[in-house]
Amino acid sequence: MIEVETGKQAASRAARLDAVFAALADPTRRAIIERLSRREARVTEVAEPFHMSLNAVSKHIRVLEASGVVERRRKGRDHILSINTRSLDEVDGWILRVRGYWEKRLDAMERLLRELKKDHKLRPKDRKHGSR
Amino acid sequence: MIEVETGKQAASRAARLDAVFAALADPTRRAIIERLSRREARVTEVAEPFHMSLNAVSKHIRVLEASGVVERRRKGRDHILSINTRSLDEVDGWILRVRGYWEKRLDAMERLLRELKKDHKLRPKDRKHGSR
Repeated sequence: MIEVETGKQAASRAARLDAVFAALADPTRRAIIERLSRREARVTEVAEPFHMSLNAVSKHIRVLEASGVVERRRKGRDHILSINTRSLDEVDGWILRVRGYWEKRLDAMERLLRELKKDHKLRPKDRKHGSR
Repeated sequence: MIEVETGKQAASRAARLDAVFAALADPTRRAIIERLSRREARVTEVAEPFHMSLNAVSKHIRVLEASGVVERRRKGRDHILSINTRSLDEVDGWILRVRGYWEKRLDAMERLLRELKKDHKLRPKDRKHGSR
């Protein structure tokens, strides 16, 4: 499935995975994501629980925005932050792939198809002439 | 579930997540993991497809080993590398959690329990006296 990508697509996908994994490799940034996973929030609300300056938290938020994991929109004078789950889906898809999740699913499907085929071979006349 | 962790356990879990996410934030290291996800391999086999020195690849392998994603064992004179899927499970669990996967599952279970309870209240005598 992955092989049909062009070189350019593969390169930009790799760059996205680099950015998302790097963004998640920090406990403050993961805590921000955990906070936003409950509900979207203003920048000041997100910064509140941390023992650091608003400026320091803002830097972490910018890293998350650059990676595509967090999105910002304006609502009047407020900046509302929310999670973009699609970027997490891509990362999760990669992990499931290397853990062999999809192979196991495809293997199970192949076994099923083989059994159906065997079943079909054992009684080919059933299909040719019909039984109803 | 996560809340019952002690502070020390939470800190070491955070450190493990930091290390695994950082290890995955590099295309060469992800390619090594993809290679090992098909089957375990010797260091030289892993290094072969890359246009870089064995020393450069070895550095990437050491980062993967330090993160716990890759394990090394000796087999005679060879060093065999393989994936430790448990470390990937932890990372995957974190992603599923912030994507609200478990909340959705727990919500579904809660709904089911509520319905079973309602059902039980509507006909309590069925259970007291039995029907068989």
